[in-house]
Amino acid sequence: MENNNTIISQLQSPDKLPGVILSGINSVDDLRALPVSDLEQLSFELRHYIIHTLALHPGHLASSLGTVELTLALHYVFNTPDDKLIWDVGHQAYAHKIITGRRDLFPTIRTYGGLSGFPRIDESPFDAFGTGHSSTSISAALGMATASTLQGNTKRQHIAVIGDGSMTGGQAFEALNNAGVSKANILVVLNDNGISIDKAVGGLSRHLTRITASPQYNKLKEKVWRHLGGDKTDHKPHNKSLNFFQRITFMAKTAALGAPNLFESLGFRYFGPIDGHNVEELVEVLSQLKTIRGPKLLHVITKKGKGLRTAERHPVTYHAPGRFNAETGAQIKNNVNGQPLKYQDVFGHTIVELARHNPRIVGITPAMPTGCSLNIMMEQMPTRAFDVGIAEQHAVTFAAGLAAQGMQPFCNIYSSFMQRAYDQIIHDVALQHLPVIICLDRAGIVGDDGPTHHGAFDLACLRPIPNLTICAPLDEHELRNMMYTAQLPDQGAVVIRYPRGLSVHPDWKSPFQQLQTGRGRCLLQGTQVAIISIGHIGNTALQAAETLTSQGISTAMYDMRYLKPLDTDLLDSILAQGFRRIVTLEDGVKKGGLGTAVLEHFAAVKSANPSAVIPPTTVLGLPDHFVTHGPVPQLHRDCGIDLDSVIAACKQ
Amino acid sequence: MENNNTIISQLQSPDKLPGVILSGINSVDDLRALPVSDLEQLSFELRHYIIHTLALHPGHLASSLGTVELTLALHYVFNTPDDKLIWDVGHQAYAHKIITGRRDLFPTIRTYGGLSGFPRIDESPFDAFGTGHSSTSISAALGMATASTLQGNTKRQHIAVIGDGSMTGGQAFEALNNAGVSKANILVVLNDNGISIDKAVGGLSRHLTRITASPQYNKLKEKVWRHLGGDKTDHKPHNKSLNFFQRITFMAKTAALGAPNLFESLGFRYFGPIDGHNVEELVEVLSQLKTIRGPKLLHVITKKGKGLRTAERHPVTYHAPGRFNAETGAQIKNNVNGQPLKYQDVFGHTIVELARHNPRIVGITPAMPTGCSLNIMMEQMPTRAFDVGIAEQHAVTFAAGLAAQGMQPFCNIYSSFMQRAYDQIIHDVALQHLPVIICLDRAGIVGDDGPTHHGAFDLACLRPIPNLTICAPLDEHELRNMMYTAQLPDQGAVVIRYPRGLSVHPDWKSPFQQLQTGRGRCLLQGTQVAIISIGHIGNTALQAAETLTSQGISTAMYDMRYLKPLDTDLLDSILAQGFRRIVTLEDGVKKGGLGTAVLEHFAAVKSANPSAVIPPTTVLGLPDHFVTHGPVPQLHRDCGIDLDSVIAACKQ
Repeated sequence: MENNNTIISQLQSPDKLPGVILSGINSVDDLRALPVSDLEQLSFELRHYIIHTLALHPGHLASSLGTVELTLALHYVFNTPDDKLIWDVGHQAYAHKIITGRRDLFPTIRTYGGLSGFPRIDESPFDAFGTGHSSTSISAALGMATASTLQGNTKRQHIAVIGDGSMTGGQAFEALNNAGVSKANILVVLNDNGISIDKAVGGLSRHLTRITASPQYNKLKEKVWRHLGGDKTDHKPHNKSLNFFQRITFMAKTAALGAPNLFESLGFRYFGPIDGHNVEELVEVLSQLKTIRGPKLLHVITKKGKGLRTAERHPVTYHAPGRFNAETGAQIKNNVNGQPLKYQDVFGHTIVELARHNPRIVGITPAMPTGCSLNIMMEQMPTRAFDVGIAEQHAVTFAAGLAAQGMQPFCNIYSSFMQRAYDQIIHDVALQHLPVIICLDRAGIVGDDGPTHHGAFDLACLRPIPNLTICAPLDEHELRNMMYTAQLPDQGAVVIRYPRGLSVHPDWKSPFQQLQTGRGRCLLQGTQVAIISIGHIGNTALQAAETLTSQGISTAMYDMRYLKPLDTDLLDSILAQGFRRIVTLEDGVKKGGLGTAVLEHFAAVKSANPSAVIPPTTVLGLPDHFVTHGPVPQLHRDCGIDLDSVIAACKQ
Repeated sequence: MENNNTIISQLQSPDKLPGVILSGINSVDDLRALPVSDLEQLSFELRHYIIHTLALHPGHLASSLGTVELTLALHYVFNTPDDKLIWDVGHQAYAHKIITGRRDLFPTIRTYGGLSGFPRIDESPFDAFGTGHSSTSISAALGMATASTLQGNTKRQHIAVIGDGSMTGGQAFEALNNAGVSKANILVVLNDNGISIDKAVGGLSRHLTRITASPQYNKLKEKVWRHLGGDKTDHKPHNKSLNFFQRITFMAKTAALGAPNLFESLGFRYFGPIDGHNVEELVEVLSQLKTIRGPKLLHVITKKGKGLRTAERHPVTYHAPGRFNAETGAQIKNNVNGQPLKYQDVFGHTIVELARHNPRIVGITPAMPTGCSLNIMMEQMPTRAFDVGIAEQHAVTFAAGLAAQGMQPFCNIYSSFMQRAYDQIIHDVALQHLPVIICLDRAGIVGDDGPTHHGAFDLACLRPIPNLTICAPLDEHELRNMMYTAQLPDQGAVVIRYPRGLSVHPDWKSPFQQLQTGRGRCLLQGTQVAIISIGHIGNTALQAAETLTSQGISTAMYDMRYLKPLDTDLLDSILAQGFRRIVTLEDGVKKGGLGTAVLEHFAAVKSANPSAVIPPTTVLGLPDHFVTHGPVPQLHRDCGIDLDSVIAACKQ
């Protein structure tokens, strides 16, 4: 811990960036040319550079600070990019980007046209596999290792770095199960910081703590290690000793821990835990592991936020803190008085309010309590709100189980992560008519996190599923009313999607009002053009309609509220009004969403009555390519769903 | 094993069905009124009844035979339906259906209007949770147990019965991880037969074998058990002894096995393994476990196919053997000479043929080698074909990893199981432009397995994903050409979907021909009506067009081949011909599939050119409700996609 304080104090007196050694690191070759004794200083400089850059250019801070030494050691020991290094989730890969030729571009991170906040296969050959969603790294590493074997390359190393939170995702287990019996040359580095984005939860987390905390085991391990020459001398234990070491520690573990090791039971060789902030020890251990063939796992203990005291103390807050003071760590809030609440907080407060009156309500989040604001309920009603770990599939079926027994679950999942639970929504919720309410947070374009995180597909992929009600609020009052309506009796399975960020009005706390399921509304009458929209982007539609009307083009605006059931009566009445053009607008993919639903209904009308007149209909939404990262307004402009684009489409 | 032979010989001389004791079991109350000593005889009769019924009415045989004693013991000990019993996957639940009031309906199993082949929440209160896809049971049981706790019911028991194969599915692990730290009152019964549908694979399977096979551990376990009075006497060890027993066996396990126990590491109490065919021992152990609170796992060893010797020997073949001779077990094949090959076998032979010429090709299946016929490649090219376990998510990302390293994977997944890998297709394959070929087997209506297994959503949910090529063959020659074309250089990610069952021509082995990606074709010219179709159901479309034309309604038929990229040139040429009506036809949901894609293009044409004339267009496909089980022709008729319905739509 003294060491830690030194780092912190060094960082609190910033020198010239990026630092003496780091300035010379233009490639991994430069890194590998350093004496190992320089790595500690380099890790200070890297941390310094990350903190001072992110203080101004917001990004994922705490995870990246936690993996600085690990990053240096991995690139120092392994022959990247020929050896394959995969960062699970990838928000911890900033140091990796800096030392693989992207140091000077680093201040562009997460900005439009700049570096991605995640590894991207097309950004650098060092980004062996793109990530963003969790728990994919072991599968990918195993695929690459298998390819190397088939190609006759027995030398190449394949490394997956995965956090203890990501390890709870089912896919990681599927991959461990498959890899454990393969002879593939893979190394899984378990980056154990007891934290995913929020605190890691579940049996695995407890298991890891038990291993880490056992003093008997750790003493024994160190003794054996030293005996074999594995301390910091030049004498390295050769392979045979290492195997012996492994056998001894295995026996020691089972004897001392009284707790069996999960990874060994799946066929992995387990090593560790070791201190992830001792870069020289990391280099030494990794060099030794390099010589061991087959699937192996190194358990590394790190501290999220390492080197910035405030971040160490509040790793959840400092996961992605926005701007902050690089010296003190204090967050720089640009709160404007009277600013609307975030949709997230409206959800968080509203579920508590509803749950006070409806004892059947429970809340579920797969590892995003702070992000989706279910933490409000977890604090106030700890027995009724559940963080189930990074486990979207389980979250949805768990909710279905609760609903089958008479409870009313609200399961809150980020839209793009819901893709992980697509089958469970079909098979466990919709098919069984179970009244699960799925709140899709971060629906639509999310901005800086980019294509892995945009909630682009939800409307299109959920619309074909029978028995689902799907809606999206125009503003926070509508969100509250949709949540209120969904928990009333006999509403079945309901999906409510809303975007990341600020809602619309300063007075969020409106009285609840029951909505009529499947009914839209007209927000502005007009005669020439009609805009049909759903969700928050309807505010843009309304503004466009008002602007057009003021310009002499009488434009109506309809808020459909419900994608499903679709308000076909309202659509028929729109047809009956004889608009010369209809424009649909949504913050989701064009193929298969609201616009498509409208077209399908219009076609059905014409199919039944060939003389029906259908006006030209323009569908606005996300295009058929993945949308990059950047500010939301910029991306909306690129996608043609900003105010100007809507106006232009109406004028067509 | 003597016992086993007795059963077999008893079964080979069939008496009156359903047997003396079984005839009296009209409810679980009747079962519970029996002396425990009658259960063995009842299990003979149940087996007998299942075998003789399935011999004539095909169904899932081997799994159900393996769980007869377990089923009896569970319902005998637990207070179902108040206690909740969930069968993972559910194809092993036939005995469960028979003794919970559905004995006389059992011969209707999997027939139209009859019992479902899987548990269904709306079929019986004893079917606590519907299943069909694997690995959901622990999540659901935990949800129910949590509901009971919140409702103040501390007595209710919640039991998930899950096979060792299903346990490799990531969701099961997510649920174990979550349940392991809960105080929820759940019992996981691990039904370990070393088999899922094919042989179970992976580290977990090896781990289970190691536990089961350790003679030291098993001897020790029995000694301790007996010492505590746990043998078959009336004296039952009380709770304290059981805890003591558990501590002892835990120590014994770690000492004797040298292999740690995965379930304990996640926080479960582990019991077993015990013989799943000794019904009295099962009753005894379950009665004891009932008194232990918190999450616990009982490891039960069963034999798939138990009681029918041929099925025991060939559990994969007898998973669902079709009709067979109840006495000898011999399958009754109704092979017609010159019958076309199944699409599955065309896939299986063709991938081997292609792989002979293209060394980059590898094959991947998540636990369905026999079902999808990848077993042909696994036999002929064992190093290049991979069964990764019940693990669709991992299968797709593993394929992406292989592709990232220059291999050309074919990943074969049943269409409805692909729903489990939806996120991986987006995030790991499409976003990264990786050339993974995903073959979706059992696309469209599958028949007897019903709504959990129909491949209804694939076209609609995959179409919005950028960078994917999506196609479906009209016949087996097209399947071969699509597979051939997909593995040529620079084809990117390709999805090929085809149905379960027979292809079209007797001569499947056509020479390969490269298709032009995104190009459809006209199979029959016409002037009045046009049918636009994709995939195997195009054969119905063609027949309809021929029939209509012969009736004087000149009908064209277009096989689009590709859903994406869509052949908009062909669609424009169709528009240019001035048909009076267009009908689209697909074996997938209407919302969002081919018909929708056509409508979207027509709308874009009209949006750009308001004077364009779009003929009335009728979309035929699966409706917006879940389709039941039954024969495919019947279900096609119900959905309005059979020959008569297509003809009627064209005549509209």
